[in-house]
Amino acid sequence: MFPPNPKNFTVVMLGAGNVAFHLACSLVNAGHKIVQIFGRSKQSTGELAKKLSCSYTLNVNDIIKDADLYIVAVPDASIGNLAQTLPKLNGIVVHTSGSTPIDTLKVLSNHYGVFYPFQTFSKARKLNLNGIPFCIEASSDEVCTLLFNLSESVGGKPIKMDSEMRRWLHLSGVFSSNFANHMFTLAQHIAETKGFSFDLLKPLISETVSKALELAPVNSQTGPAIRGDLDTIKKHVAMLSSINEEWMEVYRLLSSSIWNSNNSTNQ
Amino acid sequence: MFPPNPKNFTVVMLGAGNVAFHLACSLVNAGHKIVQIFGRSKQSTGELAKKLSCSYTLNVNDIIKDADLYIVAVPDASIGNLAQTLPKLNGIVVHTSGSTPIDTLKVLSNHYGVFYPFQTFSKARKLNLNGIPFCIEASSDEVCTLLFNLSESVGGKPIKMDSEMRRWLHLSGVFSSNFANHMFTLAQHIAETKGFSFDLLKPLISETVSKALELAPVNSQTGPAIRGDLDTIKKHVAMLSSINEEWMEVYRLLSSSIWNSNNSTNQ
Repeated sequence: MFPPNPKNFTVVMLGAGNVAFHLACSLVNAGHKIVQIFGRSKQSTGELAKKLSCSYTLNVNDIIKDADLYIVAVPDASIGNLAQTLPKLNGIVVHTSGSTPIDTLKVLSNHYGVFYPFQTFSKARKLNLNGIPFCIEASSDEVCTLLFNLSESVGGKPIKMDSEMRRWLHLSGVFSSNFANHMFTLAQHIAETKGFSFDLLKPLISETVSKALELAPVNSQTGPAIRGDLDTIKKHVAMLSSINEEWMEVYRLLSSSIWNSNNSTNQ
Repeated sequence: MFPPNPKNFTVVMLGAGNVAFHLACSLVNAGHKIVQIFGRSKQSTGELAKKLSCSYTLNVNDIIKDADLYIVAVPDASIGNLAQTLPKLNGIVVHTSGSTPIDTLKVLSNHYGVFYPFQTFSKARKLNLNGIPFCIEASSDEVCTLLFNLSESVGGKPIKMDSEMRRWLHLSGVFSSNFANHMFTLAQHIAETKGFSFDLLKPLISETVSKALELAPVNSQTGPAIRGDLDTIKKHVAMLSSINEEWMEVYRLLSSSIWNSNNSTNQ
């Protein structure tokens, strides 16, 4: 019911994926109560409910109606559909998406908002939320304050951010997390293709990131592309063309982008 | 002279860039003696010589002839030319390049090799070489042992590697260091363009890398591309097209590469 006791929310988690999993565990550890998990997959929904000792349902009509908070942690593409399917609720309804406008939830409740933890979540990895930015947007100042308190209760650092800024933050996260990880992945593929251990790359990766965090990435770039070392670049392109055309295209485009980034006056 | 005392090499450093700077400082700390710096730029060569309290020269004819070790730490494209210009030497001659064959140094000495620290070096950053892989290749077993000892004296982890394997390792380093850093750079550009702090991205970057190192990057991918979330991808492409066409191309190609990497059976 609204307004809830900020120290002890009753929560229905909609979704049983990576974000739902980590948020639910952190909320329970912080003293809140997950009363139900709703999901599409019996396996992942059941597993999460078991882990948290709560009930679950796969049927939207069986969702508990009187919880304090409903967290919609489903894939972005499903949020709109789910919002259209759910009954009107009395509690606060939030989603955890970087790129979905707050208004998508308007139909569901008078109290709604965004509760977006800016982090990468994988079930296989233990994670704590200490110091993680939580981007908060809310239908009212009262809901905003409640969501600030909620994120702080799990160790997060709340920051007020509108839908427009949040989608740019999310996009920058795709570059700095998903795309950076893909660069490590291609390096791992090369290592496996050529028979050396990915472990050899670990000190380099650690130092690359420490340096980028300390000096800022724009001040940290090294390597053939920023030096304009066309001879090495040509050799690398020829090597890649012998094992994977797409990796060669990635190499070409990123080398050119590094050069342009460093030599453009308007960036 | 050959063979030198492995605990106390006299060293001429050819080059005064990032690698020369860090190697020279580490060698001095380990008890070796830099007797001369050779470089092209009076400023960087003079600065490094001053830091190490040794002499320097900009003239290839004035290079000291009787040192134990000559470290060629110049840009890859210059190694061949420099090798053709130098007089024949009695000491060991090594280069520090990932992509240059060992044979390039054959003309210079009977004792030659490769001493390739697999790391990213920037002068602005304090760095220790503890645990850094040093890829060693040598003209003889005797030189190989000396270079193993030398890398261990600065805290490195020597590994024997031929020129062919080394150039693949170097290429994988371009992906995992230069290209990953470029992803952070583009995220920083987006943050600056849209007016939010790059600091918001730091917990995400740290976790992305910790996760990749713990679970392996191929097991760590998240985000719209691996989920096949075409709706979000389309929105992101449209957003990027409004600020920078090249970043949009990078986004497109990497999203496609993530998808293909994850759905191809032969990778």
